Amino acid sequence: MPILILLRHGQSQWNLEDRFTGWVDVDLTPQGEAEALRGGELIKAAGIAIDRCCTSVLTRAIRTSWLALWAAGQAYVPETKDWRLNERHYGGLTGLNKAETAKQHGAEQVMIWRRSYDVPPPELAADSPFDFARDRRYAGAALPRTESLKTTLDRVRPYWEDEIAPRLAADETLLVAAHGNSIRAIVKLLFGVSDAEIVGVEIPTGNPLVVELTASLKPTAARYLDGARAQALPGHTK
Amino acid sequence: MPILILLRHGQSQWNLEDRFTGWVDVDLTPQGEAEALRGGELIKAAGIAIDRCCTSVLTRAIRTSWLALWAAGQAYVPETKDWRLNERHYGGLTGLNKAETAKQHGAEQVMIWRRSYDVPPPELAADSPFDFARDRRYAGAALPRTESLKTTLDRVRPYWEDEIAPRLAADETLLVAAHGNSIRAIVKLLFGVSDAEIVGVEIPTGNPLVVELTASLKPTAARYLDGARAQALPGHTK
Repeated sequence: MPILILLRHGQSQWNLEDRFTGWVDVDLTPQGEAEALRGGELIKAAGIAIDRCCTSVLTRAIRTSWLALWAAGQAYVPETKDWRLNERHYGGLTGLNKAETAKQHGAEQVMIWRRSYDVPPPELAADSPFDFARDRRYAGAALPRTESLKTTLDRVRPYWEDEIAPRLAADETLLVAAHGNSIRAIVKLLFGVSDAEIVGVEIPTGNPLVVELTASLKPTAARYLDGARAQALPGHTK
Repeated sequence: MPILILLRHGQSQWNLEDRFTGWVDVDLTPQGEAEALRGGELIKAAGIAIDRCCTSVLTRAIRTSWLALWAAGQAYVPETKDWRLNERHYGGLTGLNKAETAKQHGAEQVMIWRRSYDVPPPELAADSPFDFARDRRYAGAALPRTESLKTTLDRVRPYWEDEIAPRLAADETLLVAAHGNSIRAIVKLLFGVSDAEIVGVEIPTGNPLVVELTASLKPTAARYLDGARAQALPGHTK
């Protein structure tokens, strides 16, 4: 039976500072590290044997995968890192404090950028210090300069189709350690969540979501390993 | 220019207890973790950009690679884990305290097992708790039940030829985070060290050995990044 475990990274330094992070490579805080370890302990307690781990090229997700695999006693599991699992690119909002942005653009506009499905923030400025076009980890990739959740899903989808779905179809158990919006994109693909509903789906941090699938990758069961911190799974019960 | 960085893991729990470890998956001690971080800081200070990291399927080497990549600011580098980079398999000596083994078998016999090139210790007993034949990380592999340095090299060589050499020939910079004897095997292959000489080569822990190579993979320069803890490189100056 194919099993997909989705694990959102925990607290990072910019979560603490309430800044739009996106693709900026900020690290986990000690609390974020503890969340990742706890996620791995839950996987171990559930007796799940992971066949492969997929993560982004951002340190906070990679270290979440490392700490979780280690705590699960499965450090030896093969890992793949791909920018298509990165957090949503926040364009011109990157690096801004959320309260300041609201003051500047209005709370309503900021809420539209944060919570609409297909309205991207302004593009990254040409001289932005957060332009990663020359970062070697993105060599050869056609990089966005801003993203909505919709365009985030547009680049998650080929990764899903090329790298995740075939492995699941081969009956593997995959751990995907990633970000709020790349996981939202996967949840939308997997559960067929509507555009309107997906923007309201909250993915808890450090709490592995275990999805059991049929051979044709239809979800048959889904549970958070820390049931006390579970969120509703929209689309799943439809 | 191809560059190969060899990094031996630091102190593990059984190093502390002076037991023959081999394939037993003991973890790093806090000192071993600090050694790995220091190795990564040295790589960062040297300004080396790693293209790929290769390690074993043993936690102490994997975590050394993780901590070193993190400290080097290069967590996003692709990683490969393969049992052929494992430590030498100590067969029937696995788990034994070195002093006790000397008392039982004689110090001279133990020194032959530890320091001869091609004399393996007795095979692992059929009922040994250290038999890893059913460990899923070795599924499909033809596992040894004991190894000399020679037979360690015999399984490192195909990994070298299939996975390391082609990447170096493609001008990549590789980090190999591994074990005393799998690194000895690579040093022997790389520098053409004699059977008699290789057994005396000490590989320091947590001190990256940076080897610059020609396009046909002949070493042209080699240096330990922590020069104060450098060891002589036999074969290199011949």
